[in-house]
Amino acid sequence: MMPVLSPEAPVDSDALLAFAKAIYARAGLSEEDAHVSADSLVQADLWGHQTHGVMRLPWYVKRLQTGAVKANTVPVVALDSGAVVVVDGQEAMGQVSARRAAELAIERAGQHGICAVAVRNSNHFGTAMYFTLMAARAGCVGFLSTNASPAMPPWGGRSKAVGTNPWSWAAPAGANPPMVLDIANTGVARGKIYLARQKGLEIPLGWALDAEGRETTDPVAALGGVTLPMAGHKGYAISVMMDMLSGVLSGSAFGASVNGPYQAEKPGGVGHLMIAMKIDAFQPRAQFESRMERLIAELRATPLAVGYDEIVYPGELEARNDARHRREGLLLPADTISDLAALATEWGCMDLLPLVR
Amino acid sequence: MMPVLSPEAPVDSDALLAFAKAIYARAGLSEEDAHVSADSLVQADLWGHQTHGVMRLPWYVKRLQTGAVKANTVPVVALDSGAVVVVDGQEAMGQVSARRAAELAIERAGQHGICAVAVRNSNHFGTAMYFTLMAARAGCVGFLSTNASPAMPPWGGRSKAVGTNPWSWAAPAGANPPMVLDIANTGVARGKIYLARQKGLEIPLGWALDAEGRETTDPVAALGGVTLPMAGHKGYAISVMMDMLSGVLSGSAFGASVNGPYQAEKPGGVGHLMIAMKIDAFQPRAQFESRMERLIAELRATPLAVGYDEIVYPGELEARNDARHRREGLLLPADTISDLAALATEWGCMDLLPLVR
Repeated sequence: MMPVLSPEAPVDSDALLAFAKAIYARAGLSEEDAHVSADSLVQADLWGHQTHGVMRLPWYVKRLQTGAVKANTVPVVALDSGAVVVVDGQEAMGQVSARRAAELAIERAGQHGICAVAVRNSNHFGTAMYFTLMAARAGCVGFLSTNASPAMPPWGGRSKAVGTNPWSWAAPAGANPPMVLDIANTGVARGKIYLARQKGLEIPLGWALDAEGRETTDPVAALGGVTLPMAGHKGYAISVMMDMLSGVLSGSAFGASVNGPYQAEKPGGVGHLMIAMKIDAFQPRAQFESRMERLIAELRATPLAVGYDEIVYPGELEARNDARHRREGLLLPADTISDLAALATEWGCMDLLPLVR
Repeated sequence: MMPVLSPEAPVDSDALLAFAKAIYARAGLSEEDAHVSADSLVQADLWGHQTHGVMRLPWYVKRLQTGAVKANTVPVVALDSGAVVVVDGQEAMGQVSARRAAELAIERAGQHGICAVAVRNSNHFGTAMYFTLMAARAGCVGFLSTNASPAMPPWGGRSKAVGTNPWSWAAPAGANPPMVLDIANTGVARGKIYLARQKGLEIPLGWALDAEGRETTDPVAALGGVTLPMAGHKGYAISVMMDMLSGVLSGSAFGASVNGPYQAEKPGGVGHLMIAMKIDAFQPRAQFESRMERLIAELRATPLAVGYDEIVYPGELEARNDARHRREGLLLPADTISDLAALATEWGCMDLLPLVR
């Protein structure tokens, strides 16, 4: 009997994780690699970032099937000078390489106070804050950037040559969940346009141009055209710098040579840069955390603008969504549900398809 | 006889530097500190960033006169674990502390591959890229952030609680001038509103709200109200993270406790974070630079959008302005010229007031 899955029925996040892990394991990933690859997707859904959630599972699996992403490989250290490490991802899942980079950066920051790990020959790693939060929980300030396939034009151009190139900073925040920033440099995450298409919705003007360089509200036309940077030329400049850090400095592909998760066949060539700074090297961690609490209290105490009933700090909404979704379950769009059901059929694990809570 | 200075007459940048240095020296700075304080202002003018140029000289001098900025002091190392250093700026000129941070970060990156220098008890340092370019010229990737006095509301708030908190990344770029990003997180630099007021111009809608929370085109009303972040909530989040890095992590003031160069009397409490990464620790510098050349060539080769006749990379316009202004001289606004003349009179160095070329 088909499990009853519908857009109105909340899905248990643990069951969803078990399902995604099972699919990845069948696609050839080790237990550990299947875990981080699946957990980072489900965690994105829990944070309320459906654009980076299990909606992407079929794309990642497809790339494992074509061999564009290697299932049976282990990222290796290519260069190691203590506080700087270069990792060759060996075309493993981006999540696998990013986890290795975060682990290494945290460990070495414990020894040197700071460490940078550059990763080459990786793939799309999903959500940057999944990895910078590893650093924050370990008493570090974490930074992670990545390059990505071309998604927007350089300022003054009309065709795609610059990736969304997301980046994240995270830090512990005392009694509050960690403070964390995780943004792409496009005016809107490309995944949100996919989600609009998935849901059959129009997109607002200003998100993208169509293939002829005209503004459009049609997600399909937008996906065939160019996404515009956030903050105009500033977003362009930030995105290029993130490619400098992630692609050029790591020795990976950069610019238009990077391939994304939307393409099934081509090696990613994606590069990342992870930096961890051990807070204890700057001041006692408890002092830092109490200062973070004061900063957050000060932000919250600001008089409200018309139309707002609270002020939140970066990462607060995600933490709140996470708690609620773990309690109440996740609502998935209909198209995602049918994609997951198709995967379950293909890989013979209908029994694992998450049941309604 | 008064030297002939006018908005139509280009000023020689070397003469302007000598003048600004002389003023700073008379205000109590050592030769070396007067140089970096003056040069960073003139350099901003040379780059075409008049908002951060000699227009600001009277404000800095005023703060030296009140003792809010200490002339006779030297930043000291408060904590040193090799690849992480915490500097106490001792309320010196921000430029003096930022130069020390950049020198230390570059030197230590040479030993460890990467180094972070956090600076507390500093002041407004002018232009971040002045210091990250020191790193780029020394074969490093440089990062510098600072906090700043409250300039915009947190997202959802109506009163100032978050600084512009500028940040910069820079890297060498082979045969090209270095690639460099230097941005504030406000939709528009606060200095541009001052400049509009200085020039008697209106500002575009969307730059700022007035004191009652209404959009305004009047620079005076805007300066009494709040500047809006770039990219909406993203700019807010970035700016808070830069305060986490610059203020909280360094052990300096943060949030609304930071005072800016516009206030003559109060200690700044400004904090910075400088990071340098030695490129040789990641890959041979020549290889990095040739890869940067390829990235830039690729950006330039993108088909143009309507209304544009070229694509530039981050920092290219500044380098071009610098070359032109060194050749042709600088044009200063009338108000700046009269401010400089007033300073010359006050400090008895009319003879140094730069002559028309």
